[in-house]
Amino acid sequence: MPPLIPIDDPDDPRIAAFREIRERDLVRRDQLFVAEGEVVLNVLVRSPLCRPTALLLLDSRVDALAAVLDALPQDVPVHVAPRAVIDRIVGFPLHRGILALGRRLAAPTPDDLLARLPAGRARVLVLVGIANHDNMGGILRNAAAFGADAVLIDHASCDPLYRKAIRVSVGAALLVPFARLEADRDPVDLVRAAGLEPLALTPSGAETLADLPDLPRAALLFGTEGPGLPAATIARCRGIRIPMAGGFDSLNVATTSGIVLHHLAGAKAPR
Amino acid sequence: MPPLIPIDDPDDPRIAAFREIRERDLVRRDQLFVAEGEVVLNVLVRSPLCRPTALLLLDSRVDALAAVLDALPQDVPVHVAPRAVIDRIVGFPLHRGILALGRRLAAPTPDDLLARLPAGRARVLVLVGIANHDNMGGILRNAAAFGADAVLIDHASCDPLYRKAIRVSVGAALLVPFARLEADRDPVDLVRAAGLEPLALTPSGAETLADLPDLPRAALLFGTEGPGLPAATIARCRGIRIPMAGGFDSLNVATTSGIVLHHLAGAKAPR
Repeated sequence: MPPLIPIDDPDDPRIAAFREIRERDLVRRDQLFVAEGEVVLNVLVRSPLCRPTALLLLDSRVDALAAVLDALPQDVPVHVAPRAVIDRIVGFPLHRGILALGRRLAAPTPDDLLARLPAGRARVLVLVGIANHDNMGGILRNAAAFGADAVLIDHASCDPLYRKAIRVSVGAALLVPFARLEADRDPVDLVRAAGLEPLALTPSGAETLADLPDLPRAALLFGTEGPGLPAATIARCRGIRIPMAGGFDSLNVATTSGIVLHHLAGAKAPR
Repeated sequence: MPPLIPIDDPDDPRIAAFREIRERDLVRRDQLFVAEGEVVLNVLVRSPLCRPTALLLLDSRVDALAAVLDALPQDVPVHVAPRAVIDRIVGFPLHRGILALGRRLAAPTPDDLLARLPAGRARVLVLVGIANHDNMGGILRNAAAFGADAVLIDHASCDPLYRKAIRVSVGAALLVPFARLEADRDPVDLVRAAGLEPLALTPSGAETLADLPDLPRAALLFGTEGPGLPAATIARCRGIRIPMAGGFDSLNVATTSGIVLHHLAGAKAPR
């Protein structure tokens, strides 16, 4: 376990980075992200894609965190403060008393991730205009739960490493290999060139998900809730729909990603 | 369209019920619920289970709402106010400028709902300790999207008609037949007596969802995120698990409900 650094003054310069969490753009300009809570801290400490750079803990939580603190590199500063100080440092209620800053070890490009796909079966998600942090976190959680190989995120989508997206993902945002698509990069061409069949999830799809045969290599495209994927994108993909009850034709996009990933995983072992 | 009632004073007694929204317990004691936004208002106006009791609209939104206002009963008061008044009335940012109060036409019991199930295929959800309004709303949205016949909600679960649950459900909370289980009522006995097979969704389940055969009449039991269903409940049900990738064994309960409902709907048309 690294040595614990007691903090009694909310203005202590050693915890300046934690005070700046309020201005998230500032934090993200430094490429730091904010991880909250014990579950996410555990993912951060063990993820091969990230590393923690500093912790700030409520004093009463330290004992219960011995196992994860023991797994920390010795050079990660672990600050410990009482409730009154913590609340003044971070500027929002820190219910769980556990806050970490972290950094990705690398920022891969879409080409990097596609080049590293397994030779056989592969599942890639392509997110187009996913602007809501709850949906982003939910999709990444499903990508981790079902072992998606990569997630490509377009320029109109929100930041998967924003605090709320990480929290909703239960840490999956720190585990799933993702890359940003450049604004002028066409995702359909890109995934086809990697030998993946592009599937556009859309109510206008000609095929139903339940009738989709096993596809060894697939890229699943999801669009913004409401407007959905652009028509020009859908036209160049295999269109897949999920039939719904009459009168309420509305599924959340994160839920949809879970349904599709489960269905395609099930197809690994045909009944 | 009912006559529009202009409101210039935030303290106008005609809109007292809207000022009380801040104290949600008060509102729910009156059996009123709060519906926000155009999509939910459309569901409320058309739902056979509820009726609107009053509307409060931002003046600039009225023209765009002509169709839904025309579908309102003439005796529903429609209050219209400028932005400055609206913001002082409701006490929270009303981004969409559309607020309605509504009431359920009846509060059915679990026995009422089970007695009304179709004779053949039936899908019932049983929610045990779903205390989070996002999860409650997400589950109800999936129940509506896949046409579940009834939702039974235990006493430890949150209120499906709380403002946030309705919003997250995109109005499904106003469409899906649901009932509260009494604290001393065993849901497993109850659904078995209605000829439904109880399926407990749990990581410890002996069968995988993907291998589940077609079940004409099923009750799907979902527990709290984290602890899951009580062991004593699982032991008396058919235990079903969703296999996940190693190292990240975590699905959101609302997403899980969507995956299960989709799978069981797909089983209607065996491949």
